[in-house]
Amino acid sequence: MLNTLIVGASGYAGVELATYLNRHPHMNITALAVSAQSPDAGKLLSDLHPQLKGMVDLPLQPLSDAAEWADKVDVVFLATAHEVSHDLAPQFLEAGCVVFDLSGAFRVNDDGFYTHYYGFSHQHQAWLDKAVYGLAEWNHDKIKEAQLVAVPGCYPTAAQLALKPLIEGDLLNDAQWPVINATSGVSGAGRKASVTTSFCEVSLQPYGIFNHRHHPEIVAHLGTPVIFTPHLGNFPRGILETITCRLKAGVTRQDVAAAFHRAYDDKPLVRLYDTGVPALKAVVGLPFCDIGFAVQDEHLIVVAAEDNLLKGASSQAVQCLNIRFGFPETLSLI
Amino acid sequence: MLNTLIVGASGYAGVELATYLNRHPHMNITALAVSAQSPDAGKLLSDLHPQLKGMVDLPLQPLSDAAEWADKVDVVFLATAHEVSHDLAPQFLEAGCVVFDLSGAFRVNDDGFYTHYYGFSHQHQAWLDKAVYGLAEWNHDKIKEAQLVAVPGCYPTAAQLALKPLIEGDLLNDAQWPVINATSGVSGAGRKASVTTSFCEVSLQPYGIFNHRHHPEIVAHLGTPVIFTPHLGNFPRGILETITCRLKAGVTRQDVAAAFHRAYDDKPLVRLYDTGVPALKAVVGLPFCDIGFAVQDEHLIVVAAEDNLLKGASSQAVQCLNIRFGFPETLSLI
Amino acid sequence: MLNTLIVGASGYAGVELATYLNRHPHMNITALAVSAQSPDAGKLLSDLHPQLKGMVDLPLQPLSDAAEWADKVDVVFLATAHEVSHDLAPQFLEAGCVVFDLSGAFRVNDDGFYTHYYGFSHQHQAWLDKAVYGLAEWNHDKIKEAQLVAVPGCYPTAAQLALKPLIEGDLLNDAQWPVINATSGVSGAGRKASVTTSFCEVSLQPYGIFNHRHHPEIVAHLGTPVIFTPHLGNFPRGILETITCRLKAGVTRQDVAAAFHRAYDDKPLVRLYDTGVPALKAVVGLPFCDIGFAVQDEHLIVVAAEDNLLKGASSQAVQCLNIRFGFPETLSLI
Amino acid sequence: MLNTLIVGASGYAGVELATYLNRHPHMNITALAVSAQSPDAGKLLSDLHPQLKGMVDLPLQPLSDAAEWADKVDVVFLATAHEVSHDLAPQFLEAGCVVFDLSGAFRVNDDGFYTHYYGFSHQHQAWLDKAVYGLAEWNHDKIKEAQLVAVPGCYPTAAQLALKPLIEGDLLNDAQWPVINATSGVSGAGRKASVTTSFCEVSLQPYGIFNHRHHPEIVAHLGTPVIFTPHLGNFPRGILETITCRLKAGVTRQDVAAAFHRAYDDKPLVRLYDTGVPALKAVVGLPFCDIGFAVQDEHLIVVAAEDNLLKGASSQAVQCLNIRFGFPETLSLI
Repeated sequence: MLNTLIVGASGYAGVELATYLNRHPHMNITALAVSAQSPDAGKLLSDLHPQLKGMVDLPLQPLSDAAEWADKVDVVFLATAHEVSHDLAPQFLEAGCVVFDLSGAFRVNDDGFYTHYYGFSHQHQAWLDKAVYGLAEWNHDKIKEAQLVAVPGCYPTAAQLALKPLIEGDLLNDAQWPVINATSGVSGAGRKASVTTSFCEVSLQPYGIFNHRHHPEIVAHLGTPVIFTPHLGNFPRGILETITCRLKAGVTRQDVAAAFHRAYDDKPLVRLYDTGVPALKAVVGLPFCDIGFAVQDEHLIVVAAEDNLLKGASSQAVQCLNIRFGFPETLSLI
Repeated sequence: MLNTLIVGASGYAGVELATYLNRHPHMNITALAVSAQSPDAGKLLSDLHPQLKGMVDLPLQPLSDAAEWADKVDVVFLATAHEVSHDLAPQFLEAGCVVFDLSGAFRVNDDGFYTHYYGFSHQHQAWLDKAVYGLAEWNHDKIKEAQLVAVPGCYPTAAQLALKPLIEGDLLNDAQWPVINATSGVSGAGRKASVTTSFCEVSLQPYGIFNHRHHPEIVAHLGTPVIFTPHLGNFPRGILETITCRLKAGVTRQDVAAAFHRAYDDKPLVRLYDTGVPALKAVVGLPFCDIGFAVQDEHLIVVAAEDNLLKGASSQAVQCLNIRFGFPETLSLI
Repeated sequence: MLNTLIVGASGYAGVELATYLNRHPHMNITALAVSAQSPDAGKLLSDLHPQLKGMVDLPLQPLSDAAEWADKVDVVFLATAHEVSHDLAPQFLEAGCVVFDLSGAFRVNDDGFYTHYYGFSHQHQAWLDKAVYGLAEWNHDKIKEAQLVAVPGCYPTAAQLALKPLIEGDLLNDAQWPVINATSGVSGAGRKASVTTSFCEVSLQPYGIFNHRHHPEIVAHLGTPVIFTPHLGNFPRGILETITCRLKAGVTRQDVAAAFHRAYDDKPLVRLYDTGVPALKAVVGLPFCDIGFAVQDEHLIVVAAEDNLLKGASSQAVQCLNIRFGFPETLSLI
Repeated sequence: MLNTLIVGASGYAGVELATYLNRHPHMNITALAVSAQSPDAGKLLSDLHPQLKGMVDLPLQPLSDAAEWADKVDVVFLATAHEVSHDLAPQFLEAGCVVFDLSGAFRVNDDGFYTHYYGFSHQHQAWLDKAVYGLAEWNHDKIKEAQLVAVPGCYPTAAQLALKPLIEGDLLNDAQWPVINATSGVSGAGRKASVTTSFCEVSLQPYGIFNHRHHPEIVAHLGTPVIFTPHLGNFPRGILETITCRLKAGVTRQDVAAAFHRAYDDKPLVRLYDTGVPALKAVVGLPFCDIGFAVQDEHLIVVAAEDNLLKGASSQAVQCLNIRFGFPETLSLI
């Protein structure tokens, strides 16, 4: 049994982590923690999220000092704000914990990325150098060895799972950038009071055009430029991405299918559609990324769907945990 | 043309007032105002509520002093918090304005009501004595003469419209209190950031059991005890109330129908159902209260539906304005 | 391992059954079946319900003759229309299968009930006499011995779980019938094309006032009259019931709490609230019935929430299976 | 006063037509009609759509013979299926009526279009030649003279309003086709029973990839190829289109803004955003198309939003009526 601490457990990703880890046969949740200033400190997780009543009734403990927990646990999940992860992760890492960070604090090892997109200057270059990007289907071998896994962003997970097989297979015409139109459920904005995410205000709308922080994350890890336009959708959970690409001359539907099958036939948490494309409902509440596509002449539309809180956050974190510690990849997930 | 000021114009009821008054042929919106501290001060109403772009592009002016506006306008609508209305209304009234207050500050003329249910001690007993309760279908003659109209609460409007004909007709068995189960859209909670009303948190649930402030308002104006259980519904607008009553021995379906027809046949904004009961969709966006009922033996179920922001707030305020100034009762409303 | 057949597997309750039984360690799904006339016959369950892709990819086999399957399986789940269950159940029972029927065909052993409320004349009185009503928390001992379990209706499950402790404890004033206001998600109407349940038409509304077929089911099993008013809610899943009762003179909040605790403290799938009342979101997707209440003088409001497809149908069926075969009561459910 | 007949009045577009024309000061609704086979024939429009109760209580008359009505009315609105419009329009036209057809039957004057995309062979080439495409902001002068106006499809309206100023201004790089990602509310599928549009089945999903019939309509009227990917959204009304374009070298944000302002500054029903882009909520229930955009280097994202039933159907039909008969363009619309 591995002892684990979940920091930031009161948010939507934290709840999912707590649920998965609570039923994981090799994990023991030592504690759930929230920031010492949080008004939720001292409450039960199930007070905030009543669906957990009788299942995960652990208290949310105020985290004032990482040292207090670092020697009691083997594994730490950080479902915290970027700056908080940036500060906390090294403390746990230096005490020897394995850390799965769901924030953006260690995802891109690139000068200027954090100052430009996250508004802070990164102070832990050594850990940034060691961090492994937790795109589970593509970085399996590095994740196995990692002490710090930077779990990918929600949009980048689906975008990369959809595009990497095409790029690796050299199927795309470079003259035209892939156009990623993505729509996310409101839970992507986190669990905090805001007029923008209030029930009466939400309606389908684009946001962050040309400047969303997941854009450079996608580009950095794909190694190719894209146009990325995120939208807020009027549903609580899930992400659907519709990606328009131009194929190289001569590339056929069969080539595209072969590339996807090569990439994912042995991957249990990516489901390929031989016909049709996924609807959002196929993935909500589930740890899969579903991928389908259509081809006409040199035009290719790829559709990828996932639950933003699961494959886009918490289930991918647990998938990385399973890989890291040699457990079956889907353990506790399906 | 009457000049009018809408205070609290940035909220959901304010938007509806601005829309109605903007198209009212006898009204001129002199200004829209918000509290001087509001972060919305200085913005256009259509910046906050983009549906109004090109229709009501007026700025939200910070209201620091009622005197500044009192002599420029004939009519004031207060879509403000209870305490704010309590303080502002007398200032406008003493300057001679006619005031339509959508808050609870002047609805119940009863010792202890404000301290117990609203948490403040009422300082304007003289105006409370003069205030007319704006239940338009029942207080027509008093509204015609009023300087201060206290527009009823959203739940009390539907509850009273459903029950008053039965009580006036002496059809109900006093041994059993009417049971009012009511469900309101989320807009009833106002336009402010709150985890409770955030998109991912809303689901059908009762609240304020035995202690909602609309309960004593209903009881005070009906003159009879009731059990009132409000619920938050997962829709933005509308109220549906299902009211279970016991009829006096010998009272028939025909007696009930006759009582409703007597009360409302000449009332353009109450729609009676001869068969069936209303669904919420019948009234959303419209200034009506719809009423239907079913009888079995001595059991009566009355169902009333309205848009909480319209017949439950803004359209009833404009209906009262129309009555007060002798305009056709539905002018600008349908 | 017990072999099982799910008939009516393509509907919403069938999907949930398939999901639970697929992960049940002692159950083997021998086949999924639909009516031979169904357009879905021959498809995979996961073609209709893409969330199951990769998890339950079994075909929907056309059921033309019960005999074809009766000797291949130990257990049959009928998630079929009432008339279909009425005809099929005896065929499987006579072949020795244990049958869990989710329809209304064997729930009430009462002359005239089926002709009046279901529109058919019951032809299997002997099986009706032997059928055990599967209200799991209350009929444990009979379920253990049953060959035919009539799984309760969705509304009656929550209503009875809320009221039985009060009635058994003799806490209610007989002079006033409990008033049950219930709101169900749209999935309660089943998976069939209908304008009434189409996306653009659904809004909160009462239906079946004084004549819903779940009313006599509640009354028959509680042994006491009630007023029951169901509503269609604008959400896919879940039932919330708000029940207004009158207490006998002298009965206190503590008495009510004690009655609930006595009934459910050792029952893993009923969750009692010591403070507050449940919201719908607490139970959606989960096999619990959550119960909370409030008392003021002699007035008692009980609120019960469940997922209509789970505790109101499929999870209760599996709970009954677990009881019947001596498995842990929550096996595969949580 | 012009007498008018609305055929297909029971559907969602028909309801909106009835509402607008009922309040139009120069129009008299002579009759509402539905197909003689419709189960709705004989009902009141307000029986099907209770929000109209007391406002539009006209009966839905069975239309068996166009001749019966053709000499009683001046204007006919066809909110009918494509084949029905194809058959009916000529009958009314030959009797001298002015016809506004909301179907696709007369939108594209192109060999093979109807057989390929609509599954029927067009029999009325002469009327197809005379039909005017009712894109109101662009075809004003032709609409003024038209006897038959083919009101554009919902998706094509927004797409063309967004792209025509750019194409007319020669701002786009031909090497890259505009990528139109569009999401429509469920009402776009019409008011008929279908599992696909049932409440529990709807979730965000692409459909009709590379083969939606609105694609050739857009291409035919723009005169330029595009990639068009429609999606079903989980909301009842509205369309949002996010269009990704490549600008010609040297084209600036100012050039784009100038093109839009040139096209629409004198058009009351297109609202341009100087900053930001529209959200769906800005247009639902309103007759506008809202347009905003963002530029980065040679990349341009245009966002257009409209109510699919209004600017995408019924309000544009009434706008065309207003243009045709010389009424103010927005009469009865805002």
